[in-house]
Amino acid sequence: METQVEDFLQFLRFASISTDSAHRESVAACARWLEQKLCAIGLSAELHETPGHPVVVARNTHQPGRRTVLIYGHYDVQPVEPLQLWANPPFEPQIQDGVVTARGATDNKGQILSHIQGVAQSLLKGGDLPVNLIFLIEGEEEIGSPHLASFLQERAEELRCDVVAISDTGMIERGVPTLTYGLRGIVCMEVKLHGPSMDLHSGIYGGAVANPITALARLIATLHDEHGRVAIAGFYDQVKAIESWEHELWAKLPTLQIQALTGVSELFGEAGFSSLERIWARPTAEPNGIGGGYQGEGSKTVIPSEAFAKLTFRLVPGQSPERISALVREHFEKHCPPGVGLEMTEGHRGMPYLMDPHSNHGLAARRALSKAFDTSDVALIREGGSIPIVQTFRDILKVDTLLLGLALPDCRAHSPNENFLLENYFAGMRLNQFLLEELAKA
Amino acid sequence: METQVEDFLQFLRFASISTDSAHRESVAACARWLEQKLCAIGLSAELHETPGHPVVVARNTHQPGRRTVLIYGHYDVQPVEPLQLWANPPFEPQIQDGVVTARGATDNKGQILSHIQGVAQSLLKGGDLPVNLIFLIEGEEEIGSPHLASFLQERAEELRCDVVAISDTGMIERGVPTLTYGLRGIVCMEVKLHGPSMDLHSGIYGGAVANPITALARLIATLHDEHGRVAIAGFYDQVKAIESWEHELWAKLPTLQIQALTGVSELFGEAGFSSLERIWARPTAEPNGIGGGYQGEGSKTVIPSEAFAKLTFRLVPGQSPERISALVREHFEKHCPPGVGLEMTEGHRGMPYLMDPHSNHGLAARRALSKAFDTSDVALIREGGSIPIVQTFRDILKVDTLLLGLALPDCRAHSPNENFLLENYFAGMRLNQFLLEELAKA
Repeated sequence: METQVEDFLQFLRFASISTDSAHRESVAACARWLEQKLCAIGLSAELHETPGHPVVVARNTHQPGRRTVLIYGHYDVQPVEPLQLWANPPFEPQIQDGVVTARGATDNKGQILSHIQGVAQSLLKGGDLPVNLIFLIEGEEEIGSPHLASFLQERAEELRCDVVAISDTGMIERGVPTLTYGLRGIVCMEVKLHGPSMDLHSGIYGGAVANPITALARLIATLHDEHGRVAIAGFYDQVKAIESWEHELWAKLPTLQIQALTGVSELFGEAGFSSLERIWARPTAEPNGIGGGYQGEGSKTVIPSEAFAKLTFRLVPGQSPERISALVREHFEKHCPPGVGLEMTEGHRGMPYLMDPHSNHGLAARRALSKAFDTSDVALIREGGSIPIVQTFRDILKVDTLLLGLALPDCRAHSPNENFLLENYFAGMRLNQFLLEELAKA
Repeated sequence: METQVEDFLQFLRFASISTDSAHRESVAACARWLEQKLCAIGLSAELHETPGHPVVVARNTHQPGRRTVLIYGHYDVQPVEPLQLWANPPFEPQIQDGVVTARGATDNKGQILSHIQGVAQSLLKGGDLPVNLIFLIEGEEEIGSPHLASFLQERAEELRCDVVAISDTGMIERGVPTLTYGLRGIVCMEVKLHGPSMDLHSGIYGGAVANPITALARLIATLHDEHGRVAIAGFYDQVKAIESWEHELWAKLPTLQIQALTGVSELFGEAGFSSLERIWARPTAEPNGIGGGYQGEGSKTVIPSEAFAKLTFRLVPGQSPERISALVREHFEKHCPPGVGLEMTEGHRGMPYLMDPHSNHGLAARRALSKAFDTSDVALIREGGSIPIVQTFRDILKVDTLLLGLALPDCRAHSPNENFLLENYFAGMRLNQFLLEELAKA
């Protein structure tokens, strides 16, 4: 156990910040450390260069007739600013009361290393694993995995597998093992309304020309009805309804303290659904930014020449990004107020994701979670965000991904004082062993 | 005439930019030059220091029983940036085809100097003026006249007059003398909506909490109906209706090419009114700025913690800033969507202004304009902007202000290549003489 903790601390000491070219050597050194670690436990490991940061791939000796499991993780981490908010330097990990605090502890070094340690224990004990195993550990997750898809495409044959497993999601609560079986998709769009060819004096022209801010506000206001429901024609047509078992299960989950966590004065969302349902299984239309005219102190009496809003639409299973994008465009064209010109620019799109938690793989994952945490209560949840790599695995490798959470709600991923429970580091090792055993039979 | 033009060029060479402390000495030198000029033509002139830039006051020998006319102007100018857009250096005036190009030419050095030259001619010819005259020429108009009100208050007795005349407004067209008899007032307000205590991930929380941008858009959208009419309860209750003579007169005015000047794709405003009526005699609710969430390139999937809009309401005669401010606050409180906190911050207020162009002073001004420009067509207009000093004169000196325009629509006030027609410089001298004659009899 001491060696396992020492390994974790070593892994955390690499400042493997992928977005910052000043840390390029730390990222590379971290990848080499991983490669050596994977070799040391008895796997054959290779470091693959990409146009960005390296991908580390390791495998046991594959045997025909066995299931093949690909475990994905990443060794790169988020930047650390603001530094002054850290209790300890982010790359000098500290352990206190069973909690490891360091950048990367929960995203994703703790989890991927716990899977590696689990495999190491199995190999020590039995000499072999019950499955053909592939570790795929990249160094660019925090910058959007720009080279992962082409890497998978080029090596689709050698990376062929029956299922992918990732531990990079959350547990609903400490001690409650959690399988995430659904994610929302996304459509990003920017809307710009063009009015006068320059900012105008609001005294000299005010009243005689359309104000792009007023027009934009009126346009954004058409996106919802007063009960929080998206008012775009056809928006909900393909939405997969929440199943009754989901409804029942989610109602029994420990309440996420959304109001306390967000500091809002009251909760608000689509009428007729609980907060968890609104986040996990209902689509949204959210402006993420709005701007136009004077932004400084005091007042400036202008009618601005333009105003913009940046929007994202979160999609749920059944909805297609292409169709929603078309509906949104139609909606904006139809509702654009007079006197302004409409410009729409589309950003990235992502498919919603859903796997069947009652499938053989799903049941295997649930049994493994149950054994690893020694409880029959395994939470089945969806999440409101998007994890593009999950769709990438489905598109290229044509397999489901099991999302097995080991991070706690207060793990502070991406924030100062990121932390990971040592208890979950060890639970992750057990989870790895049970998971491979269960998947071998699934 | 040559000397008069040379005086103008000298006046323009002072870089009397009041907002820029680096030009403090140029502002002071310009004030001293004015004082000397006013003395030289036979008036008693004094330079009064203020906590900011000096005020120059000059008068003839006042005689009991005569009307007293105060002519207001300002010798300070706007900044000159962007310099590269000027055809000549802004403080090296050029004359071409009868047009003087320099910073300050039309705002307001050309006009106030033409009045001074007019008085000089009268004094040279007749030895005296038909009225008791006061020139009040300040150096802080371009920064909002911060010390003018207290200056007037301290010297209310010695500045007592029957009427104020200002040539700092526009002519509706070259050769069409123009009296402005109405201005809009103003109420400035900033609205901020508070949502979560920090920016939230729109995947993790989107759908379960109110988005302050959505809420703000919905709130701003309640300000108007779809026909451009302000939808605040009681907003139009006190609005003075457009008189039938105004309606008829304005319909005959040369069209302001608003569409061409502003570059809008179509005109838009309150249904049932012409563009001039919308600008001159109807109140507005205009957002001047809006902001919230992510403003940079691409997308960032946040629900922002707050969003704001900066608004100005232009008021017309009959409306009081106090009452409109109260109605606006009530409206926002009533229509604020659920899930967000409303914060309102009020900025400055200004009264709308209206004088009777058929009053004795109004008729005198119209006769003077008619004679000076040798035409019976004097345009009677209102303007959409606000000139706070006009209200200051009414509040403190209790008199009307005659706004006698000498600037052309394309004079480029506040912009590069600001210019003034020499023809109007000479017309201004004639206007001054006719005006004092007419006001002496009014």
